[in-house]
Amino acid sequence: MSPPATGAVTARARANIALVKYWGKRDRALNLPAAGSLSVTLDALTTTTTVRFDPDLAADSLDLDGEPAPEPSLARLSAWLDLVRKRAGIDARAEVVSANDFPTASGLASSASAYAALALAATRAAGLQLDDRELSILARRGSGSAARSIHGGFVRMNAGSAADGSDAFAEPIAVDPPWPLRMIIAVVGAGTAKEEPSRDAMEQCADTSPLYRAWLDSVPPDLAAAEAAIAARDLAALGRIAEGSALAMHGAAMASRPGIVYFQPPTIACIETVRAMRKRGASAWFTIDAGPHVKVLTDARSARRVAAALNAVPGVGRVIDSGLGAGAEIIG
Amino acid sequence: MSPPATGAVTARARANIALVKYWGKRDRALNLPAAGSLSVTLDALTTTTTVRFDPDLAADSLDLDGEPAPEPSLARLSAWLDLVRKRAGIDARAEVVSANDFPTASGLASSASAYAALALAATRAAGLQLDDRELSILARRGSGSAARSIHGGFVRMNAGSAADGSDAFAEPIAVDPPWPLRMIIAVVGAGTAKEEPSRDAMEQCADTSPLYRAWLDSVPPDLAAAEAAIAARDLAALGRIAEGSALAMHGAAMASRPGIVYFQPPTIACIETVRAMRKRGASAWFTIDAGPHVKVLTDARSARRVAAALNAVPGVGRVIDSGLGAGAEIIG
Repeated sequence: MSPPATGAVTARARANIALVKYWGKRDRALNLPAAGSLSVTLDALTTTTTVRFDPDLAADSLDLDGEPAPEPSLARLSAWLDLVRKRAGIDARAEVVSANDFPTASGLASSASAYAALALAATRAAGLQLDDRELSILARRGSGSAARSIHGGFVRMNAGSAADGSDAFAEPIAVDPPWPLRMIIAVVGAGTAKEEPSRDAMEQCADTSPLYRAWLDSVPPDLAAAEAAIAARDLAALGRIAEGSALAMHGAAMASRPGIVYFQPPTIACIETVRAMRKRGASAWFTIDAGPHVKVLTDARSARRVAAALNAVPGVGRVIDSGLGAGAEIIG
Repeated sequence: MSPPATGAVTARARANIALVKYWGKRDRALNLPAAGSLSVTLDALTTTTTVRFDPDLAADSLDLDGEPAPEPSLARLSAWLDLVRKRAGIDARAEVVSANDFPTASGLASSASAYAALALAATRAAGLQLDDRELSILARRGSGSAARSIHGGFVRMNAGSAADGSDAFAEPIAVDPPWPLRMIIAVVGAGTAKEEPSRDAMEQCADTSPLYRAWLDSVPPDLAAAEAAIAARDLAALGRIAEGSALAMHGAAMASRPGIVYFQPPTIACIETVRAMRKRGASAWFTIDAGPHVKVLTDARSARRVAAALNAVPGVGRVIDSGLGAGAEIIG
């Protein structure tokens, strides 16, 4: 039943940072989030991915930044490609070549930009024309946060309630004119520490943390408050919610048994630095994902001095200054 | 109505470290805890306090380690001494001289040993003979954790439910023969950071943290599990509960808005050190109070190497190795 190969398609997508965090699933098999989330897509961290289906290939292959991907990554990709093949009615194997425009060892290699770029490139290469909602749902099957990277700017992820996940997709939050916020990323250490939200950690938290349920219950009011802050273009309000959401997520994770502590000493030093700068008048609020790195929401006025201050924190290896970026796009 | 002064009475009490944390009040005026707690009293950190009521004194005075105490401490003491005066039917003012056998600037100057020693010395000096339950209740009015320092060894604090606080007292947990655990205290930095649980921080957490209620709900099962671990003399089980309780408390505090983060960079380094030592076979579990210092529950077999490892952590100023200590006692 294989149609001929449709040729190679190349797509680009960008990482995103959640301001209202995603932490916990309501369905593990379908990768359905237990609560919504809200993010900004960044222009400084992109993944470019080319997909080619070819009936002559014996197996799927995945090249990551010039190297064959490790077996677990390939197995995960193949299982996900099966979703695309089933939908397109093809059974050809695929050759996937993916590259990040940031150092692979930076610890920021999020699966979000990877699966967003894949969703767009693979479906087009398979002859499908999915709308953004369908792309977001498909990206979600690869990585929960990838659903958000289909879109640019400010993005809302809907938890949904349908058992099949058909209402668990991301959509853009209209902000007109654009609100040119910036995100400063302090990469802790050599950056080899994993950043990707660990499925195992989320499950351990859901199964053992006495604070997990309360964390989930805290998300809807944060989402509403964050959307209101965006509508009002109130950076201080949005920043306070972002810090609160991140600390609540880490609080719930820490209370897992055994405790999941993502902070490293420089993580705390960055928190102290951001708070001290804020006291001195900077517009800067931190957020932290499932890793030691610290991301600081700021604006053009404060971005440069925030970046300089974080760069001076012992244990910070490098600092990335990013604006908001676009959604996933076909580039070839 | 003042009887003559009864002369000076000197009492000694020791600090305690909660293994199941106390964090939150059900009544702020009476200082009633919202949940129970469980602690060990330490022999290495003692406070010695002399109280003398004298009708000729114009005002209460408080000498702390050879210096007049700051006004807020004196005002707090005077309000507390009024409870003693009312009960004893006297109105004489008191001269209070208190000294810690650990550096005042160590950041470990807990109000627990202070108000436990005070409760015993002041009541005796006022001519009262209270039993341990009454002493514990009186100490609690000065500082919630002081209620536990009336007793030695392992101590259970009952949250109680009476509106007047008459059932909110601590009592010893019988362990026979004694279980000679050790606590290694890593004092972070110069030790000038406050350790004392801040009433303001507890209130901010209760008022703003979405995880506070879940934290309180987590305490009773931890108390039951800790008592079972003590009865079974199972250090690993007790240690896991201690770490879990501390991280849940800090998780709830961190999720306050704004977030209350007691960790400093060396705090995280100590956590990493303890976990690494445990992987190598040491019996060591950390707990952390409302400050940056790290206390490690261990045994005689592992104490020395735990102390050496913590002493080598950058940012740790000094390390105190303590056994379990006795309750409050009259010494003169």
